[in-house]
Amino acid sequence: MDKNSKSNNSIIAGRNAVTEALKSGRQIERIVIADGTGGSVKQIIAMAKEAKVKVEYRERAFLDKKFDGRHQGVMAYAAAHKYSTVSEILGVAESAGEPPFLVILDDIEDPHNLGAIMRTAECAGVHGIIIGKNRAVGLNETVAKSSAGAIEYMKVAQVTNIARTIDELKDKGVWVAACDMDGDNYTDADLKGSMAIVIGNEGKGISRLVKEKCDFTVSIPMLGKISSLNASNAAAILMYEIRRQRDGK
Amino acid sequence: MDKNSKSNNSIIAGRNAVTEALKSGRQIERIVIADGTGGSVKQIIAMAKEAKVKVEYRERAFLDKKFDGRHQGVMAYAAAHKYSTVSEILGVAESAGEPPFLVILDDIEDPHNLGAIMRTAECAGVHGIIIGKNRAVGLNETVAKSSAGAIEYMKVAQVTNIARTIDELKDKGVWVAACDMDGDNYTDADLKGSMAIVIGNEGKGISRLVKEKCDFTVSIPMLGKISSLNASNAAAILMYEIRRQRDGK
Repeated sequence: MDKNSKSNNSIIAGRNAVTEALKSGRQIERIVIADGTGGSVKQIIAMAKEAKVKVEYRERAFLDKKFDGRHQGVMAYAAAHKYSTVSEILGVAESAGEPPFLVILDDIEDPHNLGAIMRTAECAGVHGIIIGKNRAVGLNETVAKSSAGAIEYMKVAQVTNIARTIDELKDKGVWVAACDMDGDNYTDADLKGSMAIVIGNEGKGISRLVKEKCDFTVSIPMLGKISSLNASNAAAILMYEIRRQRDGK
Repeated sequence: MDKNSKSNNSIIAGRNAVTEALKSGRQIERIVIADGTGGSVKQIIAMAKEAKVKVEYRERAFLDKKFDGRHQGVMAYAAAHKYSTVSEILGVAESAGEPPFLVILDDIEDPHNLGAIMRTAECAGVHGIIIGKNRAVGLNETVAKSSAGAIEYMKVAQVTNIARTIDELKDKGVWVAACDMDGDNYTDADLKGSMAIVIGNEGKGISRLVKEKCDFTVSIPMLGKISSLNASNAAAILMYEIRRQRDGK
């Protein structure tokens, strides 16, 4: 490593270190560039674009504080864990001789929610989780901690376009259910067989485009005055209803 | 209010302000006294003891930082919301003409968990939540925020002795189920009728004494390598299983 770069958990700073991380195929959440940085950083920006890694611009003081000024104007957040692919996830189901049991997260932003969902998914026998690449939170250190170790076992695929991934899953015979307010009671729905459930963003719910791609919608009954559940709680209730139906309970 | 006292959200500082808060019956989470404070603070400590309010001692600098030195050596955290009683909770069920549906939390420490449980409880038709007075988190501002408004509707009773409260509930015909690892599958259990479920501490689970008081134990099946769920997720799965059984689904 370059003597001007420094590694701090999964944060990397310095031009060489960030360039090498991008070259190695190591999974990078996002790159942060100090305002006004020029020169070879342009190459890094081009590489990031190629690898579809987000690039953010921040005040130089932000990087200075994190790395005592030793950052050469660039830093990167590396994934706390390696991502999987949708094919690998489907492979896990196939190896287990089970119909696929998937969870699709349409822009979960809170790392504690993502961690808790991974933990419950691992316990409920889910084969893998699919998340989007855009605004959604990735596999960072907070997610790892909230997952209580599940990050080591639960496969997570990060896809560019969730709507397109749903089409691909449907082509492979997977039923896709949206969890939203305008559907049938989730306990009345047939959730056996190859199944993916879609959980939406904490504030905005499931995006219109993703919702339209789903085969049907299931709703968790709301008996009080509050109109929605915490995302990880909603996901937990649905995952374990699928588990119950799979187990013929 | 005393000119030397200052109110900051639900934090109160100054001897008069804290004394008045204790006198008024306003619900106080805990009182913090600066090390080495003497004089009339002894009266406050006596009142706190009488009202079963926790008293903590901290370095003077801790209070100085919070109140720019204007605290007279004492501050209090007031509850973000008023507590209810077990009788009031049972009254809600009776008014609704429904068998009681209760959640007992044996020392939940994470305010986000308590908030999420309140939110899901409100949605699932729970009549009230019972929490302990000791180490457990109370109705603070973080809980209020995590509850997404449910704190306004969901009754929470804080009791000194959960084991004794369970005895009282059993005397009133309420069945009490512990959620732990050594029970029957929760979907096989009969959870209809008057029912309370007990959820344990995030790390230590349900205490031995409380567990012994429960009528039976239910377990959420764990299919992976992780051996436990996040407390709010476990509570959500159980609350909605009770909902499902109540609705005859």
